[in-house]
Amino acid sequence: GPSEEYENLRRRVFSNTKEMWYFINHELTKLKKGDIKVEKLPEILDQIEHRKSFILSDQQKLPELDGYQDWRQQEAANVSDLVQKRLKYLQNPSNCRDARKVICNLNKGCGFGCQLHHIVYCLIFAYATERTLILNSKGWRYNTKGWEYVFYPISESCLTAYDDKVIQWPANYDPKVVSLPFIDSISQKPKFLPLAIPTDLAHRIVRFNGDPSSWWIGQMLKYVLKPKPAMQKAINETIAKMHFMRPIVGVHIRRTDKVGTEAAFHSIDEYMVHVRQYYDQLQLTQHVDVRRVYLASDDANVLGDARSKYPDYEFLGDPSIAKTAATHRRYTPVSLTGLLVDLHMLAMSDYIVCTFSSQVGRVAYEMMQTNRVDASDSFYSLDDIYYFGGQNAHNRRAIMNHTPRSNQEIAFQAGDLIGVAGNHWNGFGRGTNKRTNMNGLIPWYKTADHLVLYPFPEYKHANEHQNEL
Amino acid sequence: GPSEEYENLRRRVFSNTKEMWYFINHELTKLKKGDIKVEKLPEILDQIEHRKSFILSDQQKLPELDGYQDWRQQEAANVSDLVQKRLKYLQNPSNCRDARKVICNLNKGCGFGCQLHHIVYCLIFAYATERTLILNSKGWRYNTKGWEYVFYPISESCLTAYDDKVIQWPANYDPKVVSLPFIDSISQKPKFLPLAIPTDLAHRIVRFNGDPSSWWIGQMLKYVLKPKPAMQKAINETIAKMHFMRPIVGVHIRRTDKVGTEAAFHSIDEYMVHVRQYYDQLQLTQHVDVRRVYLASDDANVLGDARSKYPDYEFLGDPSIAKTAATHRRYTPVSLTGLLVDLHMLAMSDYIVCTFSSQVGRVAYEMMQTNRVDASDSFYSLDDIYYFGGQNAHNRRAIMNHTPRSNQEIAFQAGDLIGVAGNHWNGFGRGTNKRTNMNGLIPWYKTADHLVLYPFPEYKHANEHQNEL
Ligand SMILES: Nc1nc2c(ncn2[C@@H]2O[C@H](COP(=O)(O)OP(=O)(O)O)[C@@H](O)[C@H]2O)c(=O)[nH]1
Ligand SMILES: Nc1nc2c(ncn2[C@@H]2O[C@H](COP(=O)(O)OP(=O)(O)O)[C@@H](O)[C@H]2O)c(=O)[nH]1
Repeated sequence: GPSEEYENLRRRVFSNTKEMWYFINHELTKLKKGDIKVEKLPEILDQIEHRKSFILSDQQKLPELDGYQDWRQQEAANVSDLVQKRLKYLQNPSNCRDARKVICNLNKGCGFGCQLHHIVYCLIFAYATERTLILNSKGWRYNTKGWEYVFYPISESCLTAYDDKVIQWPANYDPKVVSLPFIDSISQKPKFLPLAIPTDLAHRIVRFNGDPSSWWIGQMLKYVLKPKPAMQKAINETIAKMHFMRPIVGVHIRRTDKVGTEAAFHSIDEYMVHVRQYYDQLQLTQHVDVRRVYLASDDANVLGDARSKYPDYEFLGDPSIAKTAATHRRYTPVSLTGLLVDLHMLAMSDYIVCTFSSQVGRVAYEMMQTNRVDASDSFYSLDDIYYFGGQNAHNRRAIMNHTPRSNQEIAFQAGDLIGVAGNHWNGFGRGTNKRTNMNGLIPWYKTADHLVLYPFPEYKHANEHQNEL
Repeated sequence: GPSEEYENLRRRVFSNTKEMWYFINHELTKLKKGDIKVEKLPEILDQIEHRKSFILSDQQKLPELDGYQDWRQQEAANVSDLVQKRLKYLQNPSNCRDARKVICNLNKGCGFGCQLHHIVYCLIFAYATERTLILNSKGWRYNTKGWEYVFYPISESCLTAYDDKVIQWPANYDPKVVSLPFIDSISQKPKFLPLAIPTDLAHRIVRFNGDPSSWWIGQMLKYVLKPKPAMQKAINETIAKMHFMRPIVGVHIRRTDKVGTEAAFHSIDEYMVHVRQYYDQLQLTQHVDVRRVYLASDDANVLGDARSKYPDYEFLGDPSIAKTAATHRRYTPVSLTGLLVDLHMLAMSDYIVCTFSSQVGRVAYEMMQTNRVDASDSFYSLDDIYYFGGQNAHNRRAIMNHTPRSNQEIAFQAGDLIGVAGNHWNGFGRGTNKRTNMNGLIPWYKTADHLVLYPFPEYKHANEHQNEL
């Protein structure tokens, strides 16, 4: 049976949701009638926020007390191990010479996050087509000596396509070795690209993780992102100086070349609202000595700015890292070390506040997904919802009918697929009803994420093979 | 492990709670800034209500999907059986002549609900002191022929104290036979009186029921309230004409002698707000053909009034029953039959809207607690929170600190006991901090119900004895 604690918690969540409604209904009715003034709103909002924080805090404790947390933990470890084994099996064919291969060039002219996602895309392609991935990193912009100088190679035994003929994918036949274009320039995208996840694992993943797509991408990162001893030592030494302690919130502030081109400017205040809310909520259930923030940015001024504006918070961060992230010094080994430190620290944080328009922010979240059972509630993105650059359509499914209340909203019926562009974090998102082709605002809560499953190969031999090694 | 459905539901509740907050925060901030007008509030409230209904609806499905529902059902049946067996054991001593007894006079000059609670109080006294309860119903106002003419006697084998000397409780020694005063006139109330529940059962009850005190009282009612064949037949025949079908909401409207003396007048509209909310919420997850309402009242005009004012609802009810409930015809056998029909129908409803200031409303709820696993979320009381007339102090325990925002509110610290007078259903209740003796408003959600346990006898032999019978 259920534990007493779980039952009490579950009932308290229900009761306090009703209580919050009674409060809101009463106060707004008074406002409507003129019994109180609009000037009272800040205080009312304050009280509503406190009530919702307590409800959310209790809701987050539900999975800890419902009796399934050990199972989730074990299952998360098992499924991750399985994926890692399969990747190792795929990347270490018994006969490298004869193995079918896919070649991925690291020469994508973009930042490290973008390049990591390029490798992820290649590795998913490899996994989907049962080809061994060969990573070609000659002339890599972060380290001319190549990927393998910094990270362990992605295979222990098969790192070359020999002199086999390399055919650019897609070809009109099935060649032994293909090389991949950038994901952005594929016209007919394979259905196995993100946010799809393998059918054979899907029903296991959803039982421990709230965002299986990013978990799956995180598993790819986990396989490829293994710093070599020299790099690991450099990272460790920098981290050791940081006095990392929990609780800690990671904040990633992407500025410089991104602002005004691919993303809007967001002031430190916009990030700190959510840091404050995180700590306010945490303080409902535990004593918080220090409100610690790990601040990562490519703008060296941000850290000083934050420290002077928020003296009640303790900011961890290394301004020299941000300096090397400046555009003119970015593509250097020392800058990469700094970025790896930042990513590691962000991923180790209890919660991150960032902009998912930045690949750095998304990589940090994907890494979080590999270091805990479920990180899907451990972030706040100021702009985009989670996505993978070049992904297939991201849909939500209507779970009830909706009649528009304004001409900005669109109608939908339960069951409709809605291609989503984003969430406005005001209760509404934007999307296109695939049935009616109408684009506009949708009340987010009337829809649920539509998870795409793809029948990836199941690598039944991966386990046996592993035992042989 | 948890089911996929449970995990998805749990996450949706969390996500939709956040979405509701985003919506509220955004809209009220616009209002604050003057970007929208106060005239928009009804529409905003409407949307908030819909969002909260969907969240509550999902929350109510949690226990159905968390994997423990069968267990709860079985455990509820087991613990009820155990209590019934113990009562039967207590009421059927192997030697009636020698048994210690407590005598309860049904001559309390009040309504049937009040009299039932008087018997409940006597039976709890009997259970607590291991005395067999003798019910004396001579000259009973609802049927001069007595309780046993209408209901099965509360013992199969022991219905008299013979000619043993009867001592009024409390006495300065421990007599064989005591007779009880009315609960209202006891000066030093025994700690075992409601809302206390038996220690040996408490930790079982809380795992399936959200309101153990009323469950416990319901068990007493279940034991005593067993109509004899003639009465049962009369009840059944009336009910058969009612076309009872689910879903159905029970509404109890107490008027006549109660209004202005012990309770305030509430218009039909006040009840119907909550009936509408119930059906609005239900319609989120199922098709509702007919919005059915069982209407019970002691005022014969209410039914016609409701039907003409709410043509979209189907009202079940028998105006002739209400007529016999009028004060001048109330204390008659036919009126009792009508009341039993009303109580039965209310208790069979999916949800009841009533005033807990009325004992009829509370009896209906207590009866609901015996015909399902947990009825603690299946009612809305327009006035009082649940109580038992003459109960010991009902406290709530502060689960966090509170600093008053106005001089109407009182301060408390986590752990403080607060004697509660009521909930105002606006997010606040009224209470007295037992530490500071300050009385005033308290934000209800910062407190949790304080359940009182009492070490009642454990009736270890009840089971064996039963088998012998
Ligand atoms: N060390 C460090 N470097 C950063 C940070 N933000 C951005 N950068 C640098 O800027 C690059 C941005 O390119 P990319 O990873 O593709 O992410 P995006 O442009 O933000 O989507 C990163 O790879 C880093 O080299 C940061 O917080 N810390
Ligand atoms: N049939 C019927 N009788 C009612 C109803 N409401 C009140 N009465 C009568 O009025 C009495 C009220 O006394 P009591 O049970 O002590 O409840 P209270 O006065 O409402 O707290 C009941 O026992 C009934 O006899 C009703 O809805 N239906």
